[in-house]
Amino acid sequence: MIFHREFITLAQYKRGFHLITAEIVSAFPQLRQFATGMLQVFIQHTSASLTINENADPTVRKDFEMHFNKSIPENDPVYSHDYEGSDDMPAHLKASILGSSVLIPIENGRLLLGIWQGIYLCEHRDEGGSRKLILSAWGLPKHGG
Amino acid sequence: MIFHREFITLAQYKRGFHLITAEIVSAFPQLRQFATGMLQVFIQHTSASLTINENADPTVRKDFEMHFNKSIPENDPVYSHDYEGSDDMPAHLKASILGSSVLIPIENGRLLLGIWQGIYLCEHRDEGGSRKLILSAWGLPKHGG
Amino acid sequence: MIFHREFITLAQYKRGFHLITAEIVSAFPQLRQFATGMLQVFIQHTSASLTINENADPTVRKDFEMHFNKSIPENDPVYSHDYEGSDDMPAHLKASILGSSVLIPIENGRLLLGIWQGIYLCEHRDEGGSRKLILSAWGLPKHGG
Repeated sequence: MIFHREFITLAQYKRGFHLITAEIVSAFPQLRQFATGMLQVFIQHTSASLTINENADPTVRKDFEMHFNKSIPENDPVYSHDYEGSDDMPAHLKASILGSSVLIPIENGRLLLGIWQGIYLCEHRDEGGSRKLILSAWGLPKHGG
Repeated sequence: MIFHREFITLAQYKRGFHLITAEIVSAFPQLRQFATGMLQVFIQHTSASLTINENADPTVRKDFEMHFNKSIPENDPVYSHDYEGSDDMPAHLKASILGSSVLIPIENGRLLLGIWQGIYLCEHRDEGGSRKLILSAWGLPKHGG
Repeated sequence: MIFHREFITLAQYKRGFHLITAEIVSAFPQLRQFATGMLQVFIQHTSASLTINENADPTVRKDFEMHFNKSIPENDPVYSHDYEGSDDMPAHLKASILGSSVLIPIENGRLLLGIWQGIYLCEHRDEGGSRKLILSAWGLPKHGG
Protein backbone atom coordinates (compact mmCIF):
# COMPACT_ATOMS: atom_id res chain seq x y z
CA MET A 1 0.00 0.00 0.00
CA ILE A 2 1.15 3.51 -0.76
CA PHE A 3 -0.23 6.85 0.42
CA HIS A 4 0.32 10.24 -1.23
CA ARG A 5 -0.92 13.69 -0.28
CA GLU A 6 -0.84 17.11 -1.87
CA PHE A 7 -1.97 20.51 -0.55
CA ILE A 8 -3.26 22.91 -3.20
CA THR A 9 -4.74 26.40 -3.26
CA LEU A 10 -7.14 27.22 -6.06
CA ALA A 11 -7.22 30.58 -7.77
CA GLN A 12 -10.27 32.56 -6.64
CA TYR A 13 -13.45 31.45 -8.37
CA LYS A 14 -16.56 33.59 -8.48
CA ARG A 15 -19.75 32.51 -6.75
CA GLY A 16 -21.22 29.51 -8.55
CA PHE A 17 -20.38 25.96 -9.58
CA HIS A 18 -17.11 25.26 -11.40
CA LEU A 19 -15.63 22.18 -13.03
CA ILE A 20 -12.17 21.53 -11.52
CA THR A 21 -11.40 17.92 -12.52
CA ALA A 22 -8.49 18.83 -14.82
CA GLU A 23 -7.00 21.14 -12.20
CA ILE A 24 -7.08 18.36 -9.59
CA VAL A 25 -5.54 15.76 -11.86
CA SER A 26 -2.74 18.00 -13.06
CA ALA A 27 -1.90 19.05 -9.49
CA PHE A 28 -1.49 15.42 -8.43
CA PRO A 29 0.82 13.48 -10.76
CA GLN A 30 1.22 10.86 -8.01
CA LEU A 31 -2.16 9.50 -9.19
CA ARG A 32 -0.34 7.78 -12.02
CA GLN A 33 1.54 5.56 -9.55
CA PHE A 34 -1.60 3.70 -8.46
CA ALA A 35 -2.74 0.41 -9.96
CA THR A 36 -5.85 0.46 -7.74
CA GLY A 37 -6.76 3.02 -5.15
CA MET A 38 -8.89 5.89 -3.91
CA LEU A 39 -8.59 9.69 -4.19
CA GLN A 40 -10.20 11.98 -1.66
CA VAL A 41 -10.51 15.70 -2.36
CA PHE A 42 -11.23 17.64 0.86
CA ILE A 43 -12.01 21.36 1.13
CA GLN A 44 -10.86 23.15 4.32
CA HIS A 45 -13.71 25.67 4.36
CA THR A 46 -17.30 25.91 5.61
CA SER A 47 -18.79 28.19 2.95
CA ALA A 48 -17.68 26.29 -0.15
CA SER A 49 -18.10 22.62 -0.99
CA LEU A 50 -17.34 19.82 -3.45
CA THR A 51 -19.61 17.55 -5.44
CA ILE A 52 -19.60 15.30 -8.51
CA ASN A 53 -21.95 16.09 -11.38
CA GLU A 54 -22.36 16.60 -15.12
CA ASN A 55 -19.17 17.68 -16.86
CA ALA A 56 -20.51 18.74 -20.27
CA ASP A 57 -23.25 21.36 -20.47
CA PRO A 58 -22.43 24.58 -18.53
CA THR A 59 -26.15 25.27 -18.05
CA VAL A 60 -26.21 22.44 -15.50
CA ARG A 61 -23.76 24.40 -13.32
CA LYS A 62 -25.80 27.57 -13.82
CA ASP A 63 -28.99 25.74 -12.79
CA PHE A 64 -27.25 24.44 -9.65
CA GLU A 65 -26.57 28.05 -8.65
CA MET A 66 -30.16 29.08 -9.42
CA HIS A 67 -31.70 26.15 -7.57
CA PHE A 68 -29.65 26.52 -4.40
CA ASN A 69 -30.21 30.27 -4.26
CA LYS A 70 -33.93 29.68 -4.47
CA SER A 71 -34.16 26.80 -1.99
CA ILE A 72 -31.75 28.37 0.55
CA PRO A 73 -32.53 32.09 0.27
CA GLU A 74 -30.51 34.97 1.64
CA ASN A 75 -32.11 37.06 4.39
CA ASP A 76 -34.43 34.26 5.50
CA PRO A 77 -35.98 35.56 8.75
CA VAL A 78 -35.17 32.24 10.47
CA TYR A 79 -31.43 33.07 10.48
CA SER A 80 -29.77 34.55 13.58
CA HIS A 81 -26.24 34.39 12.14
CA ASP A 82 -26.21 37.37 9.78
CA TYR A 83 -23.33 39.67 10.76
CA GLU A 84 -20.93 38.19 8.18
CA GLY A 85 -23.21 39.21 5.30
CA SER A 86 -26.41 37.91 3.76
CA ASP A 87 -24.56 35.27 1.71
CA ASP A 88 -22.84 33.75 4.77
CA MET A 89 -25.46 31.60 6.50
CA PRO A 90 -26.83 30.25 3.18
CA ALA A 91 -23.23 29.38 2.27
CA HIS A 92 -22.82 27.28 5.43
CA LEU A 93 -26.07 25.43 4.73
CA LYS A 94 -25.23 24.75 1.08
CA ALA A 95 -21.76 23.52 2.11
CA SER A 96 -23.18 20.87 4.43
CA ILE A 97 -25.89 19.78 2.00
CA LEU A 98 -23.37 19.24 -0.80
CA GLY A 99 -20.49 18.08 1.40
CA SER A 100 -16.88 18.91 2.14
CA SER A 101 -15.27 16.07 0.21
CA VAL A 102 -15.55 13.64 -2.69
CA LEU A 103 -14.05 10.14 -2.80
CA ILE A 104 -13.30 8.63 -6.19
CA PRO A 105 -11.86 5.25 -7.20
CA ILE A 106 -8.52 5.18 -9.06
CA GLU A 107 -7.61 2.41 -11.53
CA ASN A 108 -4.44 2.12 -13.56
CA GLY A 109 -3.35 5.67 -12.73
CA ARG A 110 -6.63 7.35 -13.66
CA LEU A 111 -9.80 8.46 -11.90
CA LEU A 112 -12.71 6.07 -12.49
CA LEU A 113 -15.26 8.79 -13.08
CA GLY A 114 -18.22 7.98 -15.31
CA ILE A 115 -18.19 9.47 -18.82
CA TRP A 116 -20.35 12.43 -17.75
CA GLN A 117 -18.92 12.95 -14.26
CA GLY A 118 -16.67 15.80 -13.16
CA ILE A 119 -15.63 17.37 -9.86
CA TYR A 120 -17.34 20.67 -9.01
CA LEU A 121 -16.02 23.39 -6.75
CA CYS A 122 -19.19 24.89 -5.26
CA GLU A 123 -18.35 28.48 -4.29
CA HIS A 124 -21.19 29.79 -2.14
CA ARG A 125 -19.82 33.21 -1.18
CA ASP A 126 -19.69 36.41 -3.19
CA GLU A 127 -16.05 36.93 -2.21
CA GLY A 128 -14.86 33.53 -1.04
CA GLY A 129 -11.20 34.14 -1.78
CA SER A 130 -8.87 31.33 -2.79
CA ARG A 131 -9.81 27.92 -1.41
CA LYS A 132 -7.50 25.29 0.07
CA LEU A 133 -7.90 21.65 -0.94
CA ILE A 134 -6.19 18.52 0.36
CA LEU A 135 -5.69 15.65 -2.07
CA SER A 136 -5.14 12.24 -0.45
CA ALA A 137 -4.68 8.95 -2.29
CA TRP A 138 -4.03 5.41 -1.07
CA GLY A 139 -3.94 1.99 -2.66
CA LEU A 140 -1.76 -0.51 -4.48
CA PRO A 141 1.14 0.71 -6.62
CA LYS A 142 1.67 -0.29 -10.21
CA HIS A 143 4.13 -3.14 -10.67
CA GLY A 144 7.50 -1.71 -9.70
CA GLY A 145 5.74 1.59 -8.76
CA MET B 1 -3.25 -4.18 3.89
CA ILE B 2 -5.29 -5.64 1.06
CA PHE B 3 -7.38 -3.90 -1.60
CA HIS B 4 -10.18 -5.46 -3.64
CA ARG B 5 -12.39 -3.99 -6.34
CA GLU B 6 -15.41 -5.15 -8.27
CA PHE B 7 -17.34 -3.53 -11.13
CA ILE B 8 -21.05 -4.31 -11.23
CA THR B 9 -24.02 -3.29 -13.36
CA LEU B 10 -27.42 -3.27 -11.71
CA ALA B 11 -30.56 -4.40 -13.47
CA GLN B 12 -32.69 -1.38 -14.40
CA TYR B 13 -34.66 -0.03 -11.46
CA LYS B 14 -37.66 2.22 -11.88
CA ARG B 15 -37.61 5.81 -10.66
CA GLY B 16 -37.56 5.87 -6.87
CA PHE B 17 -35.53 4.64 -3.90
CA HIS B 18 -34.48 0.99 -3.72
CA LEU B 19 -32.77 -1.12 -1.07
CA ILE B 20 -29.69 -2.78 -2.64
CA THR B 21 -27.65 -3.93 0.38
CA ALA B 22 -28.08 -7.65 -0.32
CA GLU B 23 -27.20 -7.19 -3.98
CA ILE B 24 -23.97 -5.36 -3.07
CA VAL B 25 -22.90 -7.93 -0.50
CA SER B 26 -23.57 -10.91 -2.74
CA ALA B 27 -21.66 -9.29 -5.63
CA PHE B 28 -18.58 -8.84 -3.47
CA PRO B 29 -17.57 -12.06 -1.70
CA GLN B 30 -14.11 -10.53 -1.16
CA LEU B 31 -15.69 -8.65 1.79
CA ARG B 32 -15.37 -11.83 3.82
CA GLN B 33 -11.56 -11.63 3.63
CA PHE B 34 -11.38 -8.47 5.75
CA ALA B 35 -10.81 -8.48 9.49
CA THR B 36 -11.12 -4.68 9.58
CA GLY B 37 -11.64 -2.38 6.65
CA MET B 38 -13.79 -0.02 4.60
CA LEU B 39 -16.16 -0.52 1.67
CA GLN B 40 -16.93 2.28 -0.75
CA VAL B 41 -19.82 1.99 -3.20
CA PHE B 42 -19.49 4.55 -6.01
CA ILE B 43 -22.04 5.23 -8.77
CA GLN B 44 -20.67 6.34 -12.17
CA HIS B 45 -23.69 8.49 -13.06
CA THR B 46 -24.95 12.03 -12.48
CA SER B 47 -28.71 11.41 -12.40
CA ALA B 48 -28.77 8.62 -9.82
CA SER B 49 -27.20 8.50 -6.39
CA LEU B 50 -26.53 6.41 -3.27
CA THR B 51 -27.45 6.94 0.36
CA ILE B 52 -27.87 5.01 3.61
CA ASN B 53 -31.26 4.96 5.29
CA GLU B 54 -34.00 2.86 6.90
CA ASN B 55 -34.07 -0.74 5.68
CA ALA B 56 -37.41 -1.94 7.02
CA ASP B 57 -40.57 -0.04 6.12
CA PRO B 58 -41.01 0.49 2.34
CA THR B 59 -43.07 3.64 3.00
CA VAL B 60 -39.84 5.40 3.98
CA ARG B 61 -38.50 4.88 0.44
CA LYS B 62 -41.82 6.04 -1.01
CA ASP B 63 -41.72 9.19 1.14
CA PHE B 64 -38.17 9.91 -0.05
CA GLU B 65 -39.46 9.94 -3.63
CA MET B 66 -42.41 12.17 -2.67
CA HIS B 67 -40.28 14.62 -0.69
CA PHE B 68 -37.58 15.08 -3.33
CA ASN B 69 -40.13 15.49 -6.13
CA LYS B 70 -41.80 18.22 -4.12
CA SER B 71 -38.66 20.07 -3.00
CA ILE B 72 -36.90 19.81 -6.40
CA PRO B 73 -39.78 20.13 -8.87
CA GLU B 74 -39.73 19.39 -12.58
CA ASN B 75 -40.21 22.32 -14.93
CA ASP B 76 -39.02 24.88 -12.40
CA PRO B 77 -38.73 28.13 -14.39
CA VAL B 78 -35.22 28.71 -12.95
CA TYR B 79 -33.81 25.82 -15.05
CA SER B 80 -32.03 26.49 -18.36
CA HIS B 81 -30.97 22.87 -18.88
CA ASP B 82 -34.21 21.25 -20.08
CA TYR B 83 -33.58 19.62 -23.47
CA GLU B 84 -32.94 16.15 -21.97
CA GLY B 85 -36.44 16.03 -20.48
CA SER B 86 -38.20 17.51 -17.48
CA ASP B 87 -36.81 14.86 -15.12
CA ASP B 88 -33.17 15.54 -16.07
CA MET B 89 -32.17 18.71 -14.23
CA PRO B 90 -34.00 17.67 -11.03
CA ALA B 91 -32.13 14.35 -11.29
CA HIS B 92 -28.75 16.13 -11.34
CA LEU B 93 -29.68 18.22 -8.29
CA LYS B 94 -30.98 15.23 -6.32
CA ALA B 95 -27.83 13.27 -7.19
CA SER B 96 -25.54 15.93 -5.70
CA ILE B 97 -27.68 16.47 -2.62
CA LEU B 98 -27.70 12.75 -1.81
CA GLY B 99 -24.19 11.99 -3.07
CA SER B 100 -22.42 9.67 -5.47
CA SER B 101 -20.98 7.26 -2.92
CA VAL B 102 -21.32 5.68 0.50
CA LEU B 103 -18.43 4.55 2.72
CA ILE B 104 -19.10 1.82 5.28
CA PRO B 105 -16.86 0.16 7.89
CA ILE B 106 -16.20 -3.60 7.55
CA GLU B 107 -15.47 -5.80 10.57
CA ASN B 108 -14.86 -9.54 10.58
CA GLY B 109 -16.00 -9.93 6.97
CA ARG B 110 -19.28 -8.04 7.38
CA LEU B 111 -20.58 -4.51 6.87
CA LEU B 112 -20.93 -2.59 10.14
CA LEU B 113 -24.29 -1.08 9.28
CA GLY B 114 -26.63 -0.22 12.15
CA ILE B 115 -29.59 -2.54 12.67
CA TRP B 116 -31.91 -0.28 10.67
CA GLN B 117 -29.45 0.86 8.01
CA GLY B 118 -29.42 -0.23 4.37
CA ILE B 119 -27.90 1.05 1.13
CA TYR B 120 -30.33 2.82 -1.21
CA LEU B 121 -30.01 3.20 -4.95
CA CYS B 122 -31.70 6.54 -5.65
CA GLU B 123 -32.92 6.42 -9.26
CA HIS B 124 -33.93 9.94 -10.23
CA ARG B 125 -34.78 9.42 -13.90
CA ASP B 126 -37.90 7.95 -15.47
CA GLU B 127 -35.77 5.79 -17.77
CA GLY B 128 -32.36 5.71 -16.14
CA GLY B 129 -31.29 2.42 -17.65
CA SER B 130 -28.94 0.05 -15.85
CA ARG B 131 -26.49 1.75 -13.50
CA LYS B 132 -22.80 1.00 -13.06
CA LEU B 133 -21.33 0.74 -9.56
CA ILE B 134 -17.74 0.35 -8.40
CA LEU B 135 -17.13 -1.54 -5.16
CA SER B 136 -13.77 -0.84 -3.49
CA ALA B 137 -12.57 -2.28 -0.19
CA TRP B 138 -9.33 -1.91 1.72
CA GLY B 139 -8.07 -2.91 5.16
CA LEU B 140 -6.48 -5.70 7.16
CA PRO B 141 -7.01 -9.31 6.12
CA LYS B 142 -8.22 -12.02 8.46
CA HIS B 143 -5.45 -14.11 9.95
CA GLY B 144 -4.07 -16.14 7.09
CA GLY B 145 -6.52 -14.30 4.76
CA MET C 1 -0.02 0.90 6.50
CA ILE C 2 -1.84 0.70 9.81
CA PHE C 3 -5.56 0.55 10.56
CA HIS C 4 -7.24 1.43 13.85
CA ARG C 5 -10.88 1.36 14.87
CA GLU C 6 -12.85 2.47 17.89
CA PHE C 7 -16.54 2.07 18.76
CA ILE C 8 -18.03 4.88 20.85
CA THR C 9 -21.44 5.76 22.25
CA LEU C 10 -22.23 9.43 22.72
CA ALA C 11 -24.18 10.73 25.67
CA GLN C 12 -27.71 11.68 24.58
CA TYR C 13 -27.83 15.05 22.84
CA LYS C 14 -31.02 17.01 22.44
CA ARG C 15 -32.50 17.67 19.01
CA GLY C 16 -30.27 20.07 17.09
CA PHE C 17 -26.72 20.45 15.82
CA HIS C 18 -23.79 19.86 18.19
CA LEU C 19 -20.04 20.28 17.89
CA ILE C 20 -18.35 16.97 18.77
CA THR C 21 -14.80 17.36 17.41
CA ALA C 22 -13.13 17.34 20.83
CA GLU C 23 -15.13 14.31 21.92
CA ILE C 24 -14.06 12.37 18.81
CA VAL C 25 -10.38 13.26 19.15
CA SER C 26 -10.21 12.41 22.84
CA ALA C 27 -11.94 9.06 22.26
CA PHE C 28 -9.36 8.06 19.65
CA PRO C 29 -5.79 8.49 20.93
CA GLN C 30 -4.64 6.15 18.11
CA LEU C 31 -4.89 9.21 15.82
CA ARG C 32 -1.54 10.35 17.17
CA GLN C 33 0.18 7.30 15.65
CA PHE C 34 -0.43 8.44 12.08
CA ALA C 35 2.09 10.39 10.03
CA THR C 36 -0.41 10.61 7.14
CA GLY C 37 -3.84 9.07 6.97
CA MET C 38 -7.61 9.35 6.95
CA LEU C 39 -10.26 9.30 9.69
CA GLN C 40 -13.82 8.27 8.98
CA VAL C 41 -16.56 8.91 11.53
CA PHE C 42 -19.64 6.80 10.76
CA ILE C 43 -23.01 6.97 12.56
CA GLN C 44 -25.01 3.72 12.83
CA HIS C 45 -28.43 5.40 12.74
CA THR C 46 -30.94 6.64 10.17
CA SER C 47 -32.43 9.59 12.06
CA ALA C 48 -29.20 11.37 13.01
CA SER C 49 -26.29 12.38 10.81
CA LEU C 50 -22.81 13.90 10.67
CA THR C 51 -21.47 16.93 8.84
CA ILE C 52 -18.57 19.38 8.92
CA ASN C 53 -19.28 23.06 9.44
CA GLU C 54 -18.45 26.24 11.35
CA ASN C 55 -16.96 25.61 14.79
CA ALA C 56 -17.15 29.07 16.35
CA ASP C 57 -20.50 30.86 16.51
CA PRO C 58 -23.28 28.77 18.11
CA THR C 59 -25.91 30.69 16.13
CA VAL C 60 -24.75 28.79 13.03
CA ARG C 61 -25.83 25.51 14.65
CA LYS C 62 -29.12 27.09 15.73
CA ASP C 63 -29.75 28.32 12.18
CA PHE C 64 -29.07 24.82 10.83
CA GLU C 65 -31.88 23.52 13.05
CA MET C 66 -34.22 26.34 11.97
CA HIS C 67 -33.47 25.91 8.27
CA PHE C 68 -33.91 22.14 8.16
CA ASN C 69 -37.13 22.28 10.19
CA LYS C 70 -38.51 24.77 7.69
CA SER C 71 -37.38 23.03 4.51
CA ILE C 72 -38.32 19.51 5.69
CA PRO C 73 -41.47 20.13 7.75
CA GLU C 74 -43.17 17.73 10.13
CA ASN C 75 -46.64 16.53 9.17
CA ASP C 76 -46.11 17.17 5.46
CA PRO C 77 -49.15 15.58 3.78
CA VAL C 78 -46.85 13.79 1.29
CA TYR C 79 -45.57 11.43 4.03
CA SER C 80 -47.04 7.94 4.44
CA HIS C 81 -44.57 6.87 7.14
CA ASP C 82 -45.91 8.62 10.23
CA TYR C 83 -46.58 6.02 12.91
CA GLU C 84 -43.21 6.58 14.65
CA GLY C 85 -44.06 10.22 15.37
CA SER C 86 -44.11 13.45 13.41
CA ASP C 87 -40.35 13.97 13.80
CA ASP C 88 -39.48 10.55 12.34
CA MET C 89 -39.83 10.89 8.57
CA PRO C 90 -38.24 14.37 8.52
CA ALA C 91 -35.36 12.86 10.53
CA HIS C 92 -34.76 10.19 7.87
CA LEU C 93 -34.74 12.82 5.10
CA LYS C 94 -32.39 15.15 6.96
CA ALA C 95 -30.07 12.22 7.71
CA SER C 96 -29.65 11.35 4.02
CA ILE C 97 -29.28 14.96 2.92
CA LEU C 98 -26.49 15.58 5.44
CA GLY C 99 -24.96 12.11 5.31
CA SER C 100 -24.03 9.26 7.62
CA SER C 101 -20.28 9.86 7.69
CA VAL C 102 -17.44 12.36 7.39
CA LEU C 103 -13.95 11.59 6.09
CA ILE C 104 -11.09 13.82 7.23
CA PRO C 105 -7.37 13.80 6.40
CA ILE C 106 -4.89 13.18 9.24
CA GLU C 107 -1.35 14.60 9.21
CA ASN C 108 1.29 14.22 11.89
CA GLY C 109 -1.20 12.80 14.38
CA ARG C 110 -3.81 15.54 13.97
CA LEU C 111 -6.98 16.11 11.97
CA LEU C 112 -6.41 18.44 9.00
CA LEU C 113 -9.59 20.44 9.53
CA GLY C 114 -9.63 24.04 8.35
CA ILE C 115 -9.40 26.72 11.05
CA TRP C 116 -13.19 27.16 11.15
CA GLN C 117 -14.20 23.53 10.62
CA GLY C 118 -15.65 21.20 13.23
CA ILE C 119 -17.58 17.91 13.25
CA TYR C 120 -21.32 18.23 13.94
CA LEU C 121 -23.60 15.58 15.35
CA CYS C 122 -26.96 16.34 13.72
CA GLU C 123 -29.64 14.97 16.05
CA HIS C 124 -32.93 15.02 14.16
CA ARG C 125 -35.21 13.33 16.69
CA ASP C 126 -36.84 14.75 19.81
CA GLU C 127 -35.74 11.70 21.81
CA GLY C 128 -32.96 10.14 19.76
CA GLY C 129 -31.26 8.44 22.67
CA SER C 130 -27.53 7.84 22.73
CA ARG C 131 -25.93 7.43 19.31
CA LYS C 132 -23.29 4.90 18.26
CA LEU C 133 -20.33 6.02 16.19
CA ILE C 134 -17.54 4.02 14.55
CA LEU C 135 -14.15 5.70 14.19
CA SER C 136 -11.88 4.16 11.54
CA ALA C 137 -8.42 5.40 10.61
CA TRP C 138 -5.84 4.13 8.12
CA GLY C 139 -2.55 5.38 6.74
CA LEU C 140 1.17 5.52 7.33
CA PRO C 141 2.56 5.34 10.88
CA LYS C 142 4.97 7.84 12.31
CA HIS C 143 8.60 6.70 12.17
CA GLY C 144 8.88 3.84 14.60
CA GLY C 145 5.10 4.15 15.25
